[in-house]
Amino acid sequence: MKKDLEQLIKANNINALWVSGAAQHNPSMTYFTGAVHVTGADLFIIPGRKPILFHGMMEREEAAKTGYELISYALYPLSEYLKQTDNNQLAANALRYKKMLEDIGLTKGNVLLYGNREIGPFYSLIREVEDLLPGIRFMGDYDDTIILEARATKDPAEIEEIRKMGEITVGVVRRVEEFLSNHKVVDETLIKEDGTALTIGDVKSLINLWLAEAGAENPEATIFAIGRDGGIPHSSGTPSDPLKLGKSIVFDIFPCQAGGGYFYDFTRTWCLGYAPEEVQHAYEQVRQVYHQVANELKLGEQASKYQDLTCELFEEMGHETIRQNATVEEGYIHSVGHGLGLNVHEKPWLGRQPDPNNILRIGSVFTLEPGLYYPSKGYGIRIEDTWYVTEDGRFEKFVDYPMELVIPMKGG
Amino acid sequence: MKKDLEQLIKANNINALWVSGAAQHNPSMTYFTGAVHVTGADLFIIPGRKPILFHGMMEREEAAKTGYELISYALYPLSEYLKQTDNNQLAANALRYKKMLEDIGLTKGNVLLYGNREIGPFYSLIREVEDLLPGIRFMGDYDDTIILEARATKDPAEIEEIRKMGEITVGVVRRVEEFLSNHKVVDETLIKEDGTALTIGDVKSLINLWLAEAGAENPEATIFAIGRDGGIPHSSGTPSDPLKLGKSIVFDIFPCQAGGGYFYDFTRTWCLGYAPEEVQHAYEQVRQVYHQVANELKLGEQASKYQDLTCELFEEMGHETIRQNATVEEGYIHSVGHGLGLNVHEKPWLGRQPDPNNILRIGSVFTLEPGLYYPSKGYGIRIEDTWYVTEDGRFEKFVDYPMELVIPMKGG
Repeated sequence: MKKDLEQLIKANNINALWVSGAAQHNPSMTYFTGAVHVTGADLFIIPGRKPILFHGMMEREEAAKTGYELISYALYPLSEYLKQTDNNQLAANALRYKKMLEDIGLTKGNVLLYGNREIGPFYSLIREVEDLLPGIRFMGDYDDTIILEARATKDPAEIEEIRKMGEITVGVVRRVEEFLSNHKVVDETLIKEDGTALTIGDVKSLINLWLAEAGAENPEATIFAIGRDGGIPHSSGTPSDPLKLGKSIVFDIFPCQAGGGYFYDFTRTWCLGYAPEEVQHAYEQVRQVYHQVANELKLGEQASKYQDLTCELFEEMGHETIRQNATVEEGYIHSVGHGLGLNVHEKPWLGRQPDPNNILRIGSVFTLEPGLYYPSKGYGIRIEDTWYVTEDGRFEKFVDYPMELVIPMKGG
Repeated sequence: MKKDLEQLIKANNINALWVSGAAQHNPSMTYFTGAVHVTGADLFIIPGRKPILFHGMMEREEAAKTGYELISYALYPLSEYLKQTDNNQLAANALRYKKMLEDIGLTKGNVLLYGNREIGPFYSLIREVEDLLPGIRFMGDYDDTIILEARATKDPAEIEEIRKMGEITVGVVRRVEEFLSNHKVVDETLIKEDGTALTIGDVKSLINLWLAEAGAENPEATIFAIGRDGGIPHSSGTPSDPLKLGKSIVFDIFPCQAGGGYFYDFTRTWCLGYAPEEVQHAYEQVRQVYHQVANELKLGEQASKYQDLTCELFEEMGHETIRQNATVEEGYIHSVGHGLGLNVHEKPWLGRQPDPNNILRIGSVFTLEPGLYYPSKGYGIRIEDTWYVTEDGRFEKFVDYPMELVIPMKGG
């Protein structure tokens, strides 16, 4: 949680955090600034001081919403530094940043770099600035020991943001289920009013539309994949595929607020009308594993324990798993879950090695998502909900939704 | 254009381009891969060879859509490198990337880094890899001499993608204009059917909805700002503000395909019902400057010339401009335009210093967007269209749209 930051910075012998880039679709920045409309900024977090935000002149009003100490880039006109460097853009910008850092008193110590932006120019810039300010050592936070560690547990306000996104998510899922079940069927194919087949592309357009209506977006594409595509976990579905009865559909939806913010992550697998026996059997196995794993959730436990448990259960059922073979393509082939917040994937990591920083704690938010994949047999199955740990240490799902494989068709 | 890449790479004494990150919302990657659903990849462009794409095991089918040489990360299991490095994540990943680079024969020369991703971990990784492969020099393309230079001119297929987005954009703008003009007005305020005032937030929700319906999105927020907010060029508007007659509204919309792709950029300024005389007068001046600048567009000309011309024209009209004062807050305070493509802002730069690489060429795509800003007087004005240079060297606007300040109210 944010309140842990100062302690984490000191414990890791760090002098400042430098968060760079836009405020939107840039989780490390959004964590501090909220969803303000700032297209480029540099934020410095220095223990014991108010955060300092360098911002463009034209974005001063948006920047002011953060409540931080503001400094305009316009006070450091690039043209002056270009004069001093014979019009060398890189050298001029390096001088400019040197001056900015000096002006906020940051000229020595360990500075961690954060932010989502173009890596190349920033890489060159930082190497130049380091040459100009040899007292500073710039580094990435490779082991996610500070901002991502703070973000690994959520405070009650963050939990409520995620719950809101959860409610929006299942609202859209419910609409999709209703919409599908009311279609007419001809020759096992869902038919639109114009007499043509309903396609994956049609459904995806509606999902985007309904998300937008609810003030959300899916910055990566929603997965809505039928048959064999559902057996390839990250195939997002083939737009021209028609929707047919009796084929498994993997519907994995992970939206955030429009413009960036907290995510939710949710998957159901459906068969329209009826399910083939083999798919139904595999579905029951996934559901059983889901519940067995959920029942074992315990405060203070290694997150990785649940991946082991999932592998063990699927292996007992006769499926190959990723712990037996890292390149497995059929059976249980991914991790049973991941933390979730301003990133759709973050700490805790249920699929990684045991690690003292990767345990389930108060405020942990994570997915449970066992699945089985048999593309060669034309199906895949995944069931996923997002869970969190309450302030008194209980494990709760954010939002309930039925877990039935077969969607009965009502359209005749 | 893409066909210029190989020559640009050689001319700049570069041995390889390394493009990293997801395929979506990552223009340098999208330029090569198209809009495939790959959440993390490393692409190497080496002259004379087919591009090489490292991809996650689970994303092999999406990766295959690129037609590139594919290598799965699963062939380089992190666990093995962790064993060799006493579980040091950074050292293990550096060893892993060293092996990947060796396997594709990239062990010396100048390698340029591209891609939109978290900068910190990548910065640390690259420094470690450089220590392990001292024959390589990693650099950012700080002066945008290669990929962004190739992207600075568009081939006919790209022009058509942008035109499609232009048609979607003005389609949404037309819908907004219709929607506003059909509202009932009470006490100079637009009133919804439920009797409450129509707000900026209401209109923005509809814009997002209508964009989603058309398969587009606005990854940064649309600007729809009334009165004083419109005088702050990057204020995106206050959601609770009611829509009132006679106040200037700056409507700046810059969507791309959902999931990332080519942008369009378009602005109109409107007054509902009537315009105050001062706003009308300033509007005429902006429109006049727009047309004068458009009439001067010429193949082979420095893009920066048009910023100079715009400043000159506004100064003659008695307005302060940014070339007189870099921190000016009222008058003409930004650049008259920018290139546009997979980024909403890219080459050519109309606001920068003269530069041999910053000229208007066949395939150039750019905005023209003069404006005047007087927040202290409660208004701002901007008019913007996106233009391109045809294969035979003519300047064309992609899509026409009326340029009238006053939107007559039809709702009674």
